[in-house]
Amino acid sequence: MAKQFQYIDGDHDISVWAEDENDVVEKATNELAEHNISLSEDEIRDHVRVIPSPQRIKSSMEDVLMDTRRRGGNAAADVVESGMDVGLGTGSTTAWAIAAIGWKLNTGELENVRGVATSLQSHELAKEVDIPLVNLDEITTLDVAIDGADQYNPYAPHVVKGGGASHAREKVIDTAAERLVIATDENKAADPLDHPIPLSVLPESRTVAKQWVMDQGGEPSLRYAETKDGPLFTANGNLILDCDFGNIDEPVERAEALARIPGAQEHGLFVDLVDKIYIGIEDEVETIQL
Amino acid sequence: MAKQFQYIDGDHDISVWAEDENDVVEKATNELAEHNISLSEDEIRDHVRVIPSPQRIKSSMEDVLMDTRRRGGNAAADVVESGMDVGLGTGSTTAWAIAAIGWKLNTGELENVRGVATSLQSHELAKEVDIPLVNLDEITTLDVAIDGADQYNPYAPHVVKGGGASHAREKVIDTAAERLVIATDENKAADPLDHPIPLSVLPESRTVAKQWVMDQGGEPSLRYAETKDGPLFTANGNLILDCDFGNIDEPVERAEALARIPGAQEHGLFVDLVDKIYIGIEDEVETIQL
Repeated sequence: MAKQFQYIDGDHDISVWAEDENDVVEKATNELAEHNISLSEDEIRDHVRVIPSPQRIKSSMEDVLMDTRRRGGNAAADVVESGMDVGLGTGSTTAWAIAAIGWKLNTGELENVRGVATSLQSHELAKEVDIPLVNLDEITTLDVAIDGADQYNPYAPHVVKGGGASHAREKVIDTAAERLVIATDENKAADPLDHPIPLSVLPESRTVAKQWVMDQGGEPSLRYAETKDGPLFTANGNLILDCDFGNIDEPVERAEALARIPGAQEHGLFVDLVDKIYIGIEDEVETIQL
Repeated sequence: MAKQFQYIDGDHDISVWAEDENDVVEKATNELAEHNISLSEDEIRDHVRVIPSPQRIKSSMEDVLMDTRRRGGNAAADVVESGMDVGLGTGSTTAWAIAAIGWKLNTGELENVRGVATSLQSHELAKEVDIPLVNLDEITTLDVAIDGADQYNPYAPHVVKGGGASHAREKVIDTAAERLVIATDENKAADPLDHPIPLSVLPESRTVAKQWVMDQGGEPSLRYAETKDGPLFTANGNLILDCDFGNIDEPVERAEALARIPGAQEHGLFVDLVDKIYIGIEDEVETIQL
């Protein structure tokens, strides 16, 4: 996780960040000096909090600090109350929610919150911001899950997920939660949904599964990796077919059809699950209750 | 696999390629017309052969058709003789060797050759060029293995491998082979080797394994994925630490030390294994016998 220094008073809104805390303190010292503000090193460190590191969440440095994502993620963390068990989603917007929950636990605004991570990377984020973690096999229900989406429908409780290749574990956790809150930004809206649906499949069943998808009218593409040769493998050793069906006019039927494919492990169409959407837009956060 | 049309006579050297055979035939027809050469469609199709597709081997379109890689790979295929069992490596140079072996089987220049693939992607390439495949669990020895390298030493039989994340299976196959032939290009030479050594580790042992690498003087970096969130997973469900030791002055000792790390599954330093290196250079192929 990266570190951010933030100092806000009536006249100033100073914010600097770096991967390393000492670098942040140095940058903050210089920035404060320019504004003739005098803080001790200890006082500066009190203003330093953990924020998502770009490398951790498949974002460029610019993307991770995008205001719309930060706003959406921070706002979604408001659904968490003391004593809750919370599903911690994957992705760049959700990472801000995880950081916000950690910060609230750190300041005492929240107590007795436990997290269940949807992926190795949300597990790592939660560890770094000191959210107590529970394993998935220790829970059967959760109070709320906060997760991202590759595409959401502002008028229906359905989302397409799986761009981060963690949709199998996400679906278990998002379904186990009494409420699913999606943190996202406005660029990801579509009605009807038409994003290709990620489908994780047993490696050796890829050829058969492709044929099933084509028989259902979809165009499957095997997802390739960039930092290894050949296809991308998920944390569970599966491959991903990104299945383009054009407009998904009947998401419930589509989800049922995809679930029937032998050798398919899980698809990224989450139907009838979304309760609320937090959408970071230019200067504010819009919410949709479904 | 992509397709290439090639027509060479005393006056012409015409070559076009595309992902789809019909596109190649169309391009070839146009190109031949410009040179006033008349061939029937059947004759054109006789000149079409399979070549590695850029997407399959993590290469840009320019990289895959780089002359140095093509030359190195094609030349390395010369070590294969009829009746041999051959280890088929991973990577963009080796892909040309696989295509060349398939072509020789197709024309009858080679007979009774069987391949053992080092990865899902070399398996796919071999299927497309019709090389009969044998599973790794059906063999204990191979006549020869043709493989690539991230770095080779022109003066010693050692290479660093694992940039493609297939080094575990590659090491089994390259070691099982009586001879290991490396197909590469001149940009990958170093004496001593100093490329970071990929180390695949059990996901949950990543923290411990990192400490072991640091205790051995290396700098480990967890390899991230680009087309999923979080770290890259190998075909066997492991993570990769790229471990920078600077100059690897004592490769045998370094390999032994890395092999001792608990939770580490395999490292990419291949010592005392290389028999011959085919190096594609500007206009020719250089060979080094070790």
